[in-house]
Amino acid sequence: MANSKYEYVKSFEVEDKLMPFNWIVVRIDGRHFHQFSDVHEFEKPNDKQALELMNSCAEALLEEFKDVVFAYGVSDEYSFLFKKTSEFYQRRASKIVSILVSFFSSLYVMKWKTSFPLKELKTIPCFDARAICYPSTKIVRDYFSWRQVDCHVNNQYNTCFWMLIKSGKTKREAQDILKGTQTPEKNEILFRLGINYNELPAIFRKGSCVFRDQVEEIVKYNQDGDPVKRLRTKVGIVHCDIIGDAFWREHPKILSD
Amino acid sequence: MANSKYEYVKSFEVEDKLMPFNWIVVRIDGRHFHQFSDVHEFEKPNDKQALELMNSCAEALLEEFKDVVFAYGVSDEYSFLFKKTSEFYQRRASKIVSILVSFFSSLYVMKWKTSFPLKELKTIPCFDARAICYPSTKIVRDYFSWRQVDCHVNNQYNTCFWMLIKSGKTKREAQDILKGTQTPEKNEILFRLGINYNELPAIFRKGSCVFRDQVEEIVKYNQDGDPVKRLRTKVGIVHCDIIGDAFWREHPKILSD
Amino acid sequence: MANSKYEYVKSFEVEDKLMPFNWIVVRIDGRHFHQFSDVHEFEKPNDKQALELMNSCAEALLEEFKDVVFAYGVSDEYSFLFKKTSEFYQRRASKIVSILVSFFSSLYVMKWKTSFPLKELKTIPCFDARAICYPSTKIVRDYFSWRQVDCHVNNQYNTCFWMLIKSGKTKREAQDILKGTQTPEKNEILFRLGINYNELPAIFRKGSCVFRDQVEEIVKYNQDGDPVKRLRTKVGIVHCDIIGDAFWREHPKILSD
Amino acid sequence: MANSKYEYVKSFEVEDKLMPFNWIVVRIDGRHFHQFSDVHEFEKPNDKQALELMNSCAEALLEEFKDVVFAYGVSDEYSFLFKKTSEFYQRRASKIVSILVSFFSSLYVMKWKTSFPLKELKTIPCFDARAICYPSTKIVRDYFSWRQVDCHVNNQYNTCFWMLIKSGKTKREAQDILKGTQTPEKNEILFRLGINYNELPAIFRKGSCVFRDQVEEIVKYNQDGDPVKRLRTKVGIVHCDIIGDAFWREHPKILSD
Repeated sequence: MANSKYEYVKSFEVEDKLMPFNWIVVRIDGRHFHQFSDVHEFEKPNDKQALELMNSCAEALLEEFKDVVFAYGVSDEYSFLFKKTSEFYQRRASKIVSILVSFFSSLYVMKWKTSFPLKELKTIPCFDARAICYPSTKIVRDYFSWRQVDCHVNNQYNTCFWMLIKSGKTKREAQDILKGTQTPEKNEILFRLGINYNELPAIFRKGSCVFRDQVEEIVKYNQDGDPVKRLRTKVGIVHCDIIGDAFWREHPKILSD
Repeated sequence: MANSKYEYVKSFEVEDKLMPFNWIVVRIDGRHFHQFSDVHEFEKPNDKQALELMNSCAEALLEEFKDVVFAYGVSDEYSFLFKKTSEFYQRRASKIVSILVSFFSSLYVMKWKTSFPLKELKTIPCFDARAICYPSTKIVRDYFSWRQVDCHVNNQYNTCFWMLIKSGKTKREAQDILKGTQTPEKNEILFRLGINYNELPAIFRKGSCVFRDQVEEIVKYNQDGDPVKRLRTKVGIVHCDIIGDAFWREHPKILSD
Repeated sequence: MANSKYEYVKSFEVEDKLMPFNWIVVRIDGRHFHQFSDVHEFEKPNDKQALELMNSCAEALLEEFKDVVFAYGVSDEYSFLFKKTSEFYQRRASKIVSILVSFFSSLYVMKWKTSFPLKELKTIPCFDARAICYPSTKIVRDYFSWRQVDCHVNNQYNTCFWMLIKSGKTKREAQDILKGTQTPEKNEILFRLGINYNELPAIFRKGSCVFRDQVEEIVKYNQDGDPVKRLRTKVGIVHCDIIGDAFWREHPKILSD
Repeated sequence: MANSKYEYVKSFEVEDKLMPFNWIVVRIDGRHFHQFSDVHEFEKPNDKQALELMNSCAEALLEEFKDVVFAYGVSDEYSFLFKKTSEFYQRRASKIVSILVSFFSSLYVMKWKTSFPLKELKTIPCFDARAICYPSTKIVRDYFSWRQVDCHVNNQYNTCFWMLIKSGKTKREAQDILKGTQTPEKNEILFRLGINYNELPAIFRKGSCVFRDQVEEIVKYNQDGDPVKRLRTKVGIVHCDIIGDAFWREHPKILSD
């Protein structure tokens, strides 16, 4: 039976190649995660277990997909960076987007039990995803600065909000107190509630960076009992500032051509 | 801290709305599923449990997303149809594609244990996905005919191939025997191996159709003990021909405007 | 000298195929034509010569491009319709758009002298253009209805406006009088100024339709002096209603598949 | 009469913004210009008048559109470069492409008489056009190098070909002689025919570059009769190498951010 009679329907598929020589960022973002975190009683304003589950999925994703050179995560979102010369699935947008988000979603469910041994997964975790092209490293850095500023702004607000709630305010009262406040005022509110913002865990304040790095490992000991070391590439996570130059200077490989 | 300095990076996101008044098909497809089915020792040529796991995910997907009016699955792929007037996520391609494939992937892992109580999930199931626009119901039907013809062609070949293997042939020998054969010759090979192709389970030969249907349900019994029935819309699965007119005539709602 | 070193720059060209099996409309629109019509002292509210120059260009365009089956023009804009199965330049959007607008622009300059023998072309006529896909004949008809309603609304307003100007009002006064008026009030204003709107030339009120039609032509006379006729396909222009069914029923070929 | 009933057809227009922060090249290319140059008896292999007509149109285009910072022309094609920060028509591809090609086409017809006072314009000049995004200045330079290499390769071949024709060979014979020849062999053929390739006019060998430059102009003479000079920006044309660094170093403004 010839298939040709119907095969013309394939011609409706449109080419969706991402521009060559552009960096590609794929950002995934939890769908209805406000509700998801309620159902699963995530701690407020930040649930460390939930963040580490996201990080663990991102790490596994970088282990699998060599073309992803860097990832930055905050809250229920994660951004993955592909080198500008990457030919991953011939740069076809829907392939790249769907494979990353599918892989991440499967991992999230598979790793749930490890992160939350006592919590049942009650609803279906779901993420959306999009691919964005950036023509220069300068703009790629601005992208990640944008996400980290967002992390800071949201985290500071949420920390204030939930500390006020824990101090006995209603949600409405907390919102009213925070309306229109700037960074110094928020810091003061936190201070009065006994919290030094800068001493909060860096994972909350800075988000998480995932990338490959060379680490020296002891591979064996020689006859004299001296360690034999070797450089190995390993995916690791840090929580630090990525807006300034320091991080990128220390890790020049990430944004090298 | 103002975010505006970096927010310009948002301007690189491109609008990817799918054409209005077109039917939308999202097809998901297992990535490296040949290997996945080897690792998990799926039965050849068809593993009923694996197919029913796919179906169960598709059913749950239709329960969740009311805009999906029909789905057709075969092997490790599933096609989901949105009405042409659907405004699901404002018809943004990457939203639609990513959410469906993410939801399906999470379900696949969550439901694994039920389908395979004795098998551990050893590798990470992953699907790609794409969205395609079709301007008319005629072409939508041709699309599903295309998939069902493909189901038939592949299933017939695979059934022959694996029956030859089970009869003692090597893979190379089986391939050589099947090279260039047409439907009647394949049926004859099967017949000689004691198999009547048309008596194989319909789920293998026809694939699976998932859609909402009105079913009469007993909701309670009145005082006389008579059943009180009500029409309810329920997602169901059938395995039947969808190339001819009969199916679509019986279910006119699916392709109605 | 090998060219290959630089040829990679071709890979940045993106495929821009218009969806198959969709009708294609290319609409061209005068750029800065308000100013252009001032410079060339076009008559207000309608300059018959200028409209006929547009029509003449559209006619020549249909003579050249067989895939264009219908065109509708009003003021300084023209819409050209390609059959949904057209494979003109493999349906590449930029090819189709650029070739049509380039051809039209050249014609406009070449034909200027014939339309305006006493007027010099003082500035450079320029048109923009875009291509739009429509999945059904119903929507194609709605498209042309949209343009004809626009023609009517604009023409009625402009006729009122310029009649008020000619009756001695300032532009500001005319605008104030017309602000918020509906069709009946505008007709009354015209009536008071001695104009029966429905008796204005159809080319002003209805715009112009260009399409191929079969006409009977006398090709020669036989020995008895009787005319020998033959059907010939000719591009012609009419000014009539295209919102109702009559026009399309009379010319079924235009929208036939 | 409300227009809203039909206005939904506007929703089928797709956004076609060109990527921000990318250089934009619009290349126009003569359609059927082989035939066009035969009909108008252009000199072979190069018609200086025809090239200067193209150049004159490009110059006028740069005078009109300030966002175009550079243009390079060869034969019947011209490439126009927009700065990467240009917001010309909000970077909408079809607007940019159509306006440039329309403007150029009108100019071509309007200027024809000046270039060819004794030749009637017998057929309709028509150009296609496309827009391409380039993410870096390096790639923009490679683009123009690509075009200039093409200019050289074609011109050398064509010069050989037409010199052989003029020496009495048939077209077939000329093709056979040139088949597979490299640059040195072509130069030798030309040498034998009495032509030193490097002494041919630069406009043939190098194509034409159009850009704005600062020129010192005498604006008036003061009382003592001394000239008062002022720097003025003027669009000019040169025919020189643009593959090496020299040109771009001398004109740093063109590719500056």
